[in-house]
Amino acid sequence: MTPTAIEKIAVFVAGFDPAGATPAARHVAARALYDTIAVAIAGADEPASRLMMDYARGQSAPGMATVWATGDRLPVELAALVNGTMGHALDFDDVSSPLRGHPSVAIFPALMALGESRGVSGKALLDAYLAGFEVTIKLARAIVDDQYAKGWHSTPSIAAFGATAACARLLGLDAARIAHAMGILVSQVAGTRQNFGTMSKPFQAGQANVMALRAALLAELGFDASMSAMDGPHGYTVLYADGQDIHAQFDTLGQLPLEIDAAGIEVKKYPLCYATHRAIQGILDLRKQQSLAFAEVERVEVKTNYRATVPLIYDRPQTGLEAKFSMHYAVAAALHDGAVNLASFEDAAVRRPAIQAFFEKVELSQGEPPMFPRWAEVVVHLRDGVSHRIRVEGLRGSAQFPLSNAELVEKGADCLAHGKVALSAERLARACFELDAAPLQALLEVLRSA
Amino acid sequence: MTPTAIEKIAVFVAGFDPAGATPAARHVAARALYDTIAVAIAGADEPASRLMMDYARGQSAPGMATVWATGDRLPVELAALVNGTMGHALDFDDVSSPLRGHPSVAIFPALMALGESRGVSGKALLDAYLAGFEVTIKLARAIVDDQYAKGWHSTPSIAAFGATAACARLLGLDAARIAHAMGILVSQVAGTRQNFGTMSKPFQAGQANVMALRAALLAELGFDASMSAMDGPHGYTVLYADGQDIHAQFDTLGQLPLEIDAAGIEVKKYPLCYATHRAIQGILDLRKQQSLAFAEVERVEVKTNYRATVPLIYDRPQTGLEAKFSMHYAVAAALHDGAVNLASFEDAAVRRPAIQAFFEKVELSQGEPPMFPRWAEVVVHLRDGVSHRIRVEGLRGSAQFPLSNAELVEKGADCLAHGKVALSAERLARACFELDAAPLQALLEVLRSA
Repeated sequence: MTPTAIEKIAVFVAGFDPAGATPAARHVAARALYDTIAVAIAGADEPASRLMMDYARGQSAPGMATVWATGDRLPVELAALVNGTMGHALDFDDVSSPLRGHPSVAIFPALMALGESRGVSGKALLDAYLAGFEVTIKLARAIVDDQYAKGWHSTPSIAAFGATAACARLLGLDAARIAHAMGILVSQVAGTRQNFGTMSKPFQAGQANVMALRAALLAELGFDASMSAMDGPHGYTVLYADGQDIHAQFDTLGQLPLEIDAAGIEVKKYPLCYATHRAIQGILDLRKQQSLAFAEVERVEVKTNYRATVPLIYDRPQTGLEAKFSMHYAVAAALHDGAVNLASFEDAAVRRPAIQAFFEKVELSQGEPPMFPRWAEVVVHLRDGVSHRIRVEGLRGSAQFPLSNAELVEKGADCLAHGKVALSAERLARACFELDAAPLQALLEVLRSA
Repeated sequence: MTPTAIEKIAVFVAGFDPAGATPAARHVAARALYDTIAVAIAGADEPASRLMMDYARGQSAPGMATVWATGDRLPVELAALVNGTMGHALDFDDVSSPLRGHPSVAIFPALMALGESRGVSGKALLDAYLAGFEVTIKLARAIVDDQYAKGWHSTPSIAAFGATAACARLLGLDAARIAHAMGILVSQVAGTRQNFGTMSKPFQAGQANVMALRAALLAELGFDASMSAMDGPHGYTVLYADGQDIHAQFDTLGQLPLEIDAAGIEVKKYPLCYATHRAIQGILDLRKQQSLAFAEVERVEVKTNYRATVPLIYDRPQTGLEAKFSMHYAVAAALHDGAVNLASFEDAAVRRPAIQAFFEKVELSQGEPPMFPRWAEVVVHLRDGVSHRIRVEGLRGSAQFPLSNAELVEKGADCLAHGKVALSAERLARACFELDAAPLQALLEVLRSA
């Protein structure tokens, strides 16, 4: 196998023999160090340096913001990094179709950490989220299709702008400083789909929050950036979006309905690839309507919309992580267990002999274009010759068919149990749902009581 | 004036009226918060989450690394961020022509902070720098021309790979972890020339160090990324370099001569745009050869190589920052003062009436292609009809004509005085020059004695 670029660097660096450097070359390096330190000291009193020092001092106290699962207190930025990474580690967090990514996990960890450090009201936090959600969706509508196709990961590469807007709003910055925050963000935007399937995917969600905090907090201190950082000739749209125009979408900022009403939020009901969700719903519904003994099933046909099968790369999954991208497992688990939840993705659950033996009974295919609206058709053929058919378009959890509060609390209870946190999902939900009328501190106290 | 994209966001966010959100929409936002927290708690025990928590705990102690100018002790990453930003705030730090950017300021702040926290030897630090320098220049040779032209800022967008290699080397990571560090870096790479001329330019130099530290320290903990993060179909070369091939250059990694010998390092002798340096050197040399009374100069012709005048946008600078991009000021100060140093860029120095009156006597032009090798010609016409002409190609401070140690110490003394730090440049230089035979701690003690 030809080594990748990364592997070439790794082999070189791990085996680097400094004996190849002459004494003169080592002296050149030592002189570079001297010159670098001396020039930095000369620059210590420049505005950029003084503000960065103020920022760093403000971030170096450990106890400013809470890690949701453990109650640890960390500096604002690090708490947001941890909560954002945790929040995306299971790929179970909410989704936005216009974003092709995950809006809330890119925004709330930053807002919660910042809000805790500033003692804000729950209303201020939700207002900030709504403003950030608007910016996120407008930018996504302008550029996400090509940008995502190329390889950018929209959760950091787009929603970070919304996170920055949200943080700037929570800080109460004026328009001039908000503009600088957006420019400072552009100096940091990154995130690639090439890292999907590794820990660096949730890391990129954590990073979206960090970039936003750094941008907003530096702007608050007076740090500056170019007003053309997004749409200038060397700015964001050129570097990240092939020069596409974003103004038409931004000209709609402030118009009603807000995107929280128009685009809405899609809550994941099952902790695996979204492309399986309609088929799972169909099977669970069939199971309620019919007696469907698992042992009596001869085969299952699943057909779904154009391109929906692309991420479903495991026909014979052996681990929980593989099963997250397997329609075969989704069908087997839904039929066998009557539920698909976090426990379904323990390796032992995936390796059950009855489940493994079932994979060959699943036939998966996809339809012709277009990709939207999404649909799935499931036909369950029984040994006795009877077959049951169901077609699913409206998905429970989508903005059009939202989960009931009770269903959402049930999902949360599953999550809290999986995280081994002794906290009532009911109580956590109430603290969130009543946030508009309470200080953020009330929610934080619930979290820290775990 | 049409507002920029950033300004549109800023006006929207600053004026955002949350009354546009229905109670139902606010409840959707509150539910999203609940779902985000619950899912994050479910993900707390995932490997990505546990490692990120370990990383954050390790970064939340305040006293791990030293800020060079103030002696403040900060977490590793924040010290590197501050030192890296300070180090580029004056644009006086060293340069690499193949990089089209600043190698040392992207690498040493990270290495110094990391090295301090681990108590390494000076030799280990220099070895790591040399390895990082190699990776930086090889990657730059492969892609910098087009990447820079498009608008990426090579100090973070390329030298950060070298910084990551250097940090990984200093940590003694094995090849597998170094490869993951490179992939984790790709999740963070950013930096745009659109932010030149603002504080976000030095911020991007600071960021190069932060990205590298985060990548190397996470990889050390076992965090992972895609092996194809650089050269895969959605990886770095596609997103940041139009799919250019980097393998031919990487295949030379490990070959002698090392780039520290072949490409070398260019030290700035004057704290302003590099495009003025040859003209300044010519005038200072003429002044030593001839009696050149400032009052007797009638006019000065300066001609320099193709494209060298592009950044020199101020013919009549009024401030120190403007004067940094003015050949007119460079000529006037060199002729009047016999020196161009940090004090030359105080506003009062630029506004001296004799200097301001002189600007009209300077005639600047540029030659035909090619751009390299660089040159400058200066003709000084005196009132008495005599004229003196000089042509400069070899620049003192370049890799071909390095400064003497005494000249480098002189530059450093100017820097330390400008930074108002009571430290002997001689002593700092000695600690750097003797680093190969001492613990890094010895240099840190010199810095902290200021």
